Parts: sequence; structure tokens; C-alpha cells
Amino acid sequence: MKKKEYEAELEPLQIELVKMQAWARDSGARICVVFEGRDSAGKGGSIKAVSQNLNPRGARVVALAKPTEREAGQWYFQRYVAHLPSKGEIALFDRSWYNRGVVEPVMGFCAPEQTEDFLRAAPGFERMLTEDGLILFKFWLTMSRGAQIQRFLERESDPLKQWKLSPVDVGGLSKWDETTKAAEEMLRRTHRPPLASWWVVNSEDQRRARLQIIRVLLAGLPYENKDEAVVGAADPRLIAPPGL
Amino acid sequence: MKKKEYEAELEPLQIELVKMQAWARDSGARICVVFEGRDSAGKGGSIKAVSQNLNPRGARVVALAKPTEREAGQWYFQRYVAHLPSKGEIALFDRSWYNRGVVEPVMGFCAPEQTEDFLRAAPGFERMLTEDGLILFKFWLTMSRGAQIQRFLERESDPLKQWKLSPVDVGGLSKWDETTKAAEEMLRRTHRPPLASWWVVNSEDQRRARLQIIRVLLAGLPYENKDEAVVGAADPRLIAPPGL
Amino acid sequence: MKKKEYEAELEPLQIELVKMQAWARDSGARICVVFEGRDSAGKGGSIKAVSQNLNPRGARVVALAKPTEREAGQWYFQRYVAHLPSKGEIALFDRSWYNRGVVEPVMGFCAPEQTEDFLRAAPGFERMLTEDGLILFKFWLTMSRGAQIQRFLERESDPLKQWKLSPVDVGGLSKWDETTKAAEEMLRRTHRPPLASWWVVNSEDQRRARLQIIRVLLAGLPYENKDEAVVGAADPRLIAPPGL
Amino acid sequence: MKKKEYEAELEPLQIELVKMQAWARDSGARICVVFEGRDSAGKGGSIKAVSQNLNPRGARVVALAKPTEREAGQWYFQRYVAHLPSKGEIALFDRSWYNRGVVEPVMGFCAPEQTEDFLRAAPGFERMLTEDGLILFKFWLTMSRGAQIQRFLERESDPLKQWKLSPVDVGGLSKWDETTKAAEEMLRRTHRPPLASWWVVNSEDQRRARLQIIRVLLAGLPYENKDEAVVGAADPRLIAPPGL
Repeated sequence: MKKKEYEAELEPLQIELVKMQAWARDSGARICVVFEGRDSAGKGGSIKAVSQNLNPRGARVVALAKPTEREAGQWYFQRYVAHLPSKGEIALFDRSWYNRGVVEPVMGFCAPEQTEDFLRAAPGFERMLTEDGLILFKFWLTMSRGAQIQRFLERESDPLKQWKLSPVDVGGLSKWDETTKAAEEMLRRTHRPPLASWWVVNSEDQRRARLQIIRVLLAGLPYENKDEAVVGAADPRLIAPPGL
Repeated sequence: MKKKEYEAELEPLQIELVKMQAWARDSGARICVVFEGRDSAGKGGSIKAVSQNLNPRGARVVALAKPTEREAGQWYFQRYVAHLPSKGEIALFDRSWYNRGVVEPVMGFCAPEQTEDFLRAAPGFERMLTEDGLILFKFWLTMSRGAQIQRFLERESDPLKQWKLSPVDVGGLSKWDETTKAAEEMLRRTHRPPLASWWVVNSEDQRRARLQIIRVLLAGLPYENKDEAVVGAADPRLIAPPGL
Repeated sequence: MKKKEYEAELEPLQIELVKMQAWARDSGARICVVFEGRDSAGKGGSIKAVSQNLNPRGARVVALAKPTEREAGQWYFQRYVAHLPSKGEIALFDRSWYNRGVVEPVMGFCAPEQTEDFLRAAPGFERMLTEDGLILFKFWLTMSRGAQIQRFLERESDPLKQWKLSPVDVGGLSKWDETTKAAEEMLRRTHRPPLASWWVVNSEDQRRARLQIIRVLLAGLPYENKDEAVVGAADPRLIAPPGL
Repeated sequence: MKKKEYEAELEPLQIELVKMQAWARDSGARICVVFEGRDSAGKGGSIKAVSQNLNPRGARVVALAKPTEREAGQWYFQRYVAHLPSKGEIALFDRSWYNRGVVEPVMGFCAPEQTEDFLRAAPGFERMLTEDGLILFKFWLTMSRGAQIQRFLERESDPLKQWKLSPVDVGGLSKWDETTKAAEEMLRRTHRPPLASWWVVNSEDQRRARLQIIRVLLAGLPYENKDEAVVGAADPRLIAPPGL
């Protein structure tokens, strides 16, 4: 998608996002958006597209560092709970508790039993929060293996993006199939419509992907003065519940 | 129970508590003890009896102030989660998430729906934690109405205890029956043996009550070199699961 | 400044910012950047320009909400201290402890004595931090009264920016002179070169202003492989220490 | 001092402490008490004697664990600042920022330059807080070498106290002279009357020591209805500013 075309479509959606935040503030809605996906699938860029015109005092990005020793000894979800949104807030998680579902087991950072425990516990954790009124969106961004390799090559050569290329990424390149398998199991076991659904995002074209993500958010939130013509419907070839 | 007799029984139990803490530290057990009950039933004194010889770096008392506006807008359990024990720690809650089960509705500090939501959510919350390995004890301290009135009178006249007599207490005096009813419902709906049981403690004689609480804790924890002759068995006339 | 021209100048500076962050991470530098200024002077946009290509795990934006009652009772600086950068981190403060220097007294949110206490304490506070190794930059963004009015009008009519127009802003419109006076006193009393200098930024053209801010940051940090031709020198007509 | 005699003297002082806390709550005083001293000098017991009848919701004991990696990278005082008292609160520090003055250098846990930096910074840190209204008390508990050895032997043989005997303690036994020297330098350089004075406490008889500490606290706080006959004057042979 060309930049110009993208920007033309993005702008009216941004206006809707601003209306949506005003509604969240006034109604006290608590909105939690989880961005997960393959390395280089565009989590950070999607978060920026969502938040760029939001009031930062009500829209936080949560990107936690690796746990301290003390945190590692706590209930697994404890350090994430501390960052859940309060009334009127939007919390955008750049990676989340789902670390334990895919990245950690694929990279060997946790034991298989820990992933199993996590997959068993996550639906209950999210059910508890959503029954309490939290509005939860979960996006899994993915693309073809060719696209991933190409992005890594770009990161390597682009001085603005080199920091994004971590040893974990490079290690991950050879883990395509393991990642696919772990992600499929995670999606299957933690997709719980209607309150804790996953959306699988085809991020081959990152600009298109961002527009779809914003559409899903807007369509899923009952803010006032919604311009349905702008929000429209997300393209099911680009964003859809996991094909279980 | 006479002070002398009490101290003679308490001392060997204290030695067991110290062994228990060493075990928690070495094994990484996470122990959470909730003290709830009628006003003046002896929550604070029980916590002191349990913790007086423990290493304060591994045994914390959690006595939260009323929530800030921001906390009031969060998931109800969120501010409590922040204080759950990490590996090797013992957290002693002087009042807890059960505020919403009895004190708040009886005093009119929350809406009936909020208590209903709480009673529905609490078992799931605790199941999640205990399935994750948290060891949970919940004590409900109670005594006769006559004993409560007597203690309030003592508090009023004892300059060391006047701070304990809050307007909520005085208001609570006339709420004996409402409290009984709310407590019974709470116990019935949130007693979930074996991992999230309540223990109802007859606190008419506070010294005896403290000894029983310590016995229940020690009996329920698999620490090494336990002196079974000292731990003995708790007296079922003084401490027992709720008679549902 | 035209967008195209701006982007052409910005890109190589972004590469330098990425190098700078790599240096901060490796050397353990702690970098704290304070953005203050008149409403609509472009604090948020400047922060975005600085951070857009930085790794979010090492570069945090700190935009605190109004203090809770508990925080209001603490040492004034306490809630800000909690967000100071650790080793290798860059903290970008969107408003800061300097709230008490200008906005609060001008809007009547604090007593004159509190501002006086603050102005007396701030240099000592910052000296303590910078003597401990913190690297501190402080930017005061300002522009002409005409430009401010124009931006408010834009905000009013631009649906993407309406949230930026708060009652405080509108109230502030009539406070131009009070703000000027308060800012001058604040700059005079808290400009402490070389470790706690202010930079006054002419933000009439926001794009130019952002480039200057980035130049000052880069020039002030001893990162490796600095491309001096790119960093160049900031334009003293646009950014300079306060003319005391 | 005999237990009976101690308790007879302690009780009226406890009543004064309760009055004092009521005054702190009503006046919004912020009170910070630092307990430092040789191992086994009775810091924990003194804190218990001060706090045993205080309302735990306004009187916190702060006993921090060793810093996490992230904390170790912050401004040295940062993690302590988070626990300073808010309005109406009393914070009792069981060890404090003074770790870096004596224990850490004597045990080789920090570099000499770090202690030097600390000793230079601490007076400024405390001046800033006390000028802001914080009321600060600092107690250094000490006793003869013979008494220390005796207490270690007791700890070793008393199952209730074995946890208090850490490898640091045992290592510390042979460091008597280094500790003396480091403590003298610390006291000399950080004793800043009238707002940040040290009190050196002869803790040879721990019960007497506790009574003196309470007297110093009460004498130094302007609470209402103070019973001067009870508070009396602290015994200068047992508690006094450092003999510089």
C-alpha cells in the first residue's frame, strides 16, 4: 500500500480513535490491547498507529523489561496486573503475558511445564478480568517467512532499525516452524470469544495491517458519534479470528 | 487463659514458626494468610503473635489504606495482587479483598451488586493463585456480642487502644446481625477446600485463639523437622471450617 | 519549514539518536530530559521526534497524572523520583516537577509559598542528581502570543487535536503575561550551568524547534562514532540558554 | 533492667506514643526514624517497642531487601525515597540509606569511592527533606564488643533467634574495629543538628536503650497534651549526640 493512500485512509480513522478515547474517559471504560506476533511483524508500528493522536495521559504503552529476580518468584501474571488500565484508560501491551506461550518456549527461556501451566491459566485469568468489565483485544501479527527474512535484512542494513535486531531475532529465524506450532497451540487454547478473542493479522503489508487493527478496535467499542462509514468493516482476508 | 500459661504454650510454637520460615525461604514457598473478622476480634494481635519472631525481611504485614481514586477505578483485586508474596515470603493480610464481602456492604460503603460481583469472583481469583502454587490460609475471627461490647468499652477507656476505636466500630456495634448475616453468606460462598478453606476462630479468649491459629498454620505446612508433639492438633471447638 | 525539508534533515539525526541510545545502554548512562513550556508549544511533538526510532524498552515517556491524595502529602519531588532513569535508560518528561514553577501558580493550583519553596529547592534537588551522574537536559518551549492563539484555534477545529484543548489551556490564553513572568523567574532561579542548564526553544516553527532540540541532546552526549557533520551546531537564534 | 521494671516504665511512654500518633495524623506531620547500628545492637527490638501500640495503617516498618539489578542502576537514594512517609505517617527504617556508610564498606559490598560519594551526598539529601518539613530522627545503636559476642552466642543457641545470625554477622565479628572506624566517620560527616542529628545509643542494656529512644522521639515532637513528667529527659549517659 502506498504511503499516500495509507495516510488518506488513516486520517479519518484517527479522528474516530480520538472520539473513542473521549468516550473511554467519560464512560470509565477500561481498555486493554495486547500486541503479540512474530519478530518484525510490526507490533511497535501498530501501537504507534493506534496511539499517535491519543492523549498520552490516558493511553499508555506497556513494554516490560525482563522480570527481576523478585518478580520471577511471584505469581506469573502479577507484574502484568500492575499495568492493567484503570477507569477511562487504554493500555497497549507491546508483548504481554503471552511471552510464556510462544517466545519463551521457542527460545528455551522456560520449561515446557511452565508453558503448559500458562496455557491452562490464561483463559481463567482473562475471564476474570473481562467479567469484571475490562475490554480486551488480542492481536497476533504474522506474515510469510519470506517477508520476515526480508525485514531482518532491512533491519540489518538500516541504521534506524538495527537496535530492533536482537540475538533473539536472529536465533528466531531458524525457529520458524517451532514458532508456527507454538502459536497455533496458543491461539487454539486461549481464543475465547466473545470477550477474549484473538485476531490473527496478516502483516505482510504493514500499512494495511495497521488499518485493519484500528478498524477492529473501533468496531468493537460502543463510543458515541461513531462514523460507521469510516470505520467500515475489517477485511477478513487480512484480519480474522484464528482458523481453528 | 492466663498470661503465664499462654506464654508457656506459645514459646515452643514460636520455635516451630521459625523453622517454618526457614523452610519457606529454602523451598521458595509463597504463603498468604488472610485475617478477617469482626471489629475487635483480635486480627492485629493474632498477626503479631504469628510474626513476632519471624525475619521481617521475609514476613510482611499488609494493611492497605483506603483505595486512591485511581485504584478505585481498577480491577478490584489489582491493588491486593501487588502485595502477594514472592518466593520464600509470608504475607499476612490485616483485612484483605474480603473487605467487600462484609465490612463494606454492612457499613454501606459499596453497592449490593458490588458485593455480589465480589462473592462470585473471589473463588476464581483464589483458585487461580492456589493452582499457581500459592499457599493460602483464611481466618475469620469472631466472638459473642457481649465480648465485643466489652472490648469496645476497654478500648474506650484504655489510652493505648483508643485509636482502635473508629467511628466504623461504633457504627458496627448496632450492626451485629447484619454482620452475622453477611459473614455467613461470605463464608458459605467462598469456602473452597482444600486450597482456599476458611477457618472460623472463636476469639472469645484471644490468647487461646492465637495459639489455635498458629497450630493450623503449622499443621498445614510441610516444613522440615516439624515437632508434631508441639504442633499438636487445633481444638475443633475453637477453630473449624465454617459450619455450612 | 516544509515537511520534505524537515524529514530530510531529521533522518540523519535519527540515526545519531539510535547510536546515542546504544551508547547509553552500553555505558550505563542515565539520561533525563525535561520538556516544559507554554501550552501548545509542542512538548508532545518534540518528545515524539526524539523517541520515534528509539527502543521503547530503554526510552520511556513520563507523563504523570495529577497526584493522588497520598502523593499530594509526600515530599513534592517524591513521585517524580520514582520515574528517574536507571542505568542505560532515557526518561523523557512531558511536564515535570516544574509544574509547580509556572502552570500551578499561574492557574491558582498552588499557593505562592509553595512555588517559592519549590524554586528554592529545585536547584539542590537537581544538583544532587547530577552530582550522582544523572545527565539532565531541560527545555523550555515558547513562541509568540499570536502563534499560541493560532494553535488553539487549530486545536479547536481539528478533530485530531481537540483533546489537547483543555479548560486549563483556554484559561491560560488570558494568562500570557503571568506565564511570561513566572517562566522568567523560574528560568532565572533554576538555570544552573553546566549540569542543570535550561535551553529556551523558539517554537514558532515546531519542525525547526524539534531539530534544534535533537541537536542540543546529541551535542551534549559523548556517544561513539558521532557524525559531527550531521549533529552540527544548534542555531542560537532558535535555542539558547535563558537570556538572564 | 528487670522486665517488670521495664514494663512499668514503658507503659506510660506507650500512651504518649499513641497521643503522638494522633497528633501526627491530625497535623499531617511526616516522621521518619532511622535505626542503624552494629549487628545485634537491638534495632528490631527498638522498632517493636516504638510501634507496638501504634495504628499500623499510619506507622510502617521499612526493611528493604537487597536492591534488584534495576534498582542498583538508579540514583542511590531512589529506592528509599519511595518509602518516605506521606502526611500523618511514621516510617521506621530498619537499616536505611546508611547501609552504604558502614555495613557495605566494612563487608566489602561497595567500593570506597561509593562510600565517599554517599557520605558527601547524604547531608544534602537529608537537608532537602527536612527543609521540606520531614521530621527526621537517626539512631545509632552500639554496645561493647563483649556484649556483641554474648548476643551472637545467644542467637546461636536460641532457636527463636537463629535466623538473626547471618553469615554477615559472623563475618562482622572480626570487623569490630573497622566498624568502629567507619561508624565514627559516618557520624562525624552526617551529624547535622538540629534537623538531621544522630543519637548514639548505648545498647548494652537493650531495655534501657529502648526507653531512651522513645524519650528522645517524644521530646522532639510537639504533640498535644504531652505529659512532661512521663516523657522526662533522656539519660545522657545512654543516649547522646555523637561525641565528635
